[in-house]
Amino acid sequence: MDLPAKAKNISVILQKPKYAGNIGAAARAAKNMGMSNLVVAGSAKYDQEEIKKRSTHLAADVVEKIKYVDDISAALDKFSFIVGTTARKGAARGPFFTPRTIAEKITVVSQNNKVALLFGPEDTGLTNDELRYCHAVVVIPSSRKFSSLNLSHAVMIMCYEIFLASLPAGTEMPPKLARSSEMEDMYEQIKTVLTKIGFLNPQNPDYWMTHIRRFFNRTSLLARDVKIIRGICRQIQWYNNQKNT
Amino acid sequence: MDLPAKAKNISVILQKPKYAGNIGAAARAAKNMGMSNLVVAGSAKYDQEEIKKRSTHLAADVVEKIKYVDDISAALDKFSFIVGTTARKGAARGPFFTPRTIAEKITVVSQNNKVALLFGPEDTGLTNDELRYCHAVVVIPSSRKFSSLNLSHAVMIMCYEIFLASLPAGTEMPPKLARSSEMEDMYEQIKTVLTKIGFLNPQNPDYWMTHIRRFFNRTSLLARDVKIIRGICRQIQWYNNQKNT
Repeated sequence: MDLPAKAKNISVILQKPKYAGNIGAAARAAKNMGMSNLVVAGSAKYDQEEIKKRSTHLAADVVEKIKYVDDISAALDKFSFIVGTTARKGAARGPFFTPRTIAEKITVVSQNNKVALLFGPEDTGLTNDELRYCHAVVVIPSSRKFSSLNLSHAVMIMCYEIFLASLPAGTEMPPKLARSSEMEDMYEQIKTVLTKIGFLNPQNPDYWMTHIRRFFNRTSLLARDVKIIRGICRQIQWYNNQKNT
Repeated sequence: MDLPAKAKNISVILQKPKYAGNIGAAARAAKNMGMSNLVVAGSAKYDQEEIKKRSTHLAADVVEKIKYVDDISAALDKFSFIVGTTARKGAARGPFFTPRTIAEKITVVSQNNKVALLFGPEDTGLTNDELRYCHAVVVIPSSRKFSSLNLSHAVMIMCYEIFLASLPAGTEMPPKLARSSEMEDMYEQIKTVLTKIGFLNPQNPDYWMTHIRRFFNRTSLLARDVKIIRGICRQIQWYNNQKNT
């Protein structure tokens, strides 16, 4: 699978991050989710070795093309849809979106618009002034007693939700469950074997079979589970035949 | 909001993590999402200062009660539902769940069972032997070209999905949109004002009004947006009246 084209239109923008390690970790998180545009705003200098260490070599390409710009307005110039992230739900800052809701919107908007995901500094987050640039403000749901996320964790959750929203429906392959006919053939075989070895009463085999059916149905057998169980049944029959000859 | 009871039944278990920093970051991630049970398996010794630094003081309570155990079977002893995480989709390892699917199941199972979220070492992940302990195996979706997530990022995504699945439905407050009657009153007022100032042709006011309606409807006005717009209309009327007297 190639990156969906829209990922190229999405940038992660870190406003005045304090720790180089978080820049590296954010680069890795973005890359994990198929995004590779990272912008760092502010005049601070960062330890490039620390950035590389935390991004790991696998996100080296993202790190190499990080754009460093002096201020946030320069960082945001080219974007048409800017999504800010905040942990503080001040009245003047809403309405708030969840990552999941905004991700749906971003997959659409990013098809032909440049989208910025804007994150504030680790300690203070985005200011009200910075949030005014934003077309939408996201609050990542968290336990109320402890709401401040690590910067790279916040980046990860946003990129993860966007990546998931971008996947075509049905990408999540449910395991291939056994068909009813396979199940019935298996039950027939189990009944034969268990009757043969005297586990089931031939007068009323269905008493225990009902329990066995309930157990197997509850566990949602895969096609390959059925094959294994039938293999065991066959082996019991074979062994009995050997013994009896 | 207190932690949902089920969170108390869920533990994050790190199998032989290599870096103390990741233990701290995982503690913080868990705490962010309302979970506080962390187990570290393996005989390694970790730099406690590094753990505390990365967990931050806010997750200090989680760090203080980390359980260190020598091996994975001791770590898993008490759990009834064990969820492993892997990046490798070997044929023998499935069926695989997504974090979102398994989160739904965990919210139910954790109501009266102890649930373990098991994560392998940073470099190798869980082995096949370790995955055999698991009742379910999760693969976190990621861009195929780059699938290995940072350990604490993987912990964050799992805990985030479980936290979201635990929220009662409707927790996500959609912004309060304006009611149709509020919109219609506003349009009536706009029409009056725009006719008064000569923007609309009194013979055919609806030509431009249709465009204006389309614009406002597309943006999903909030109740408070309507108040602001009507306030501006009133002010235009007031100003005109002043001028005309």
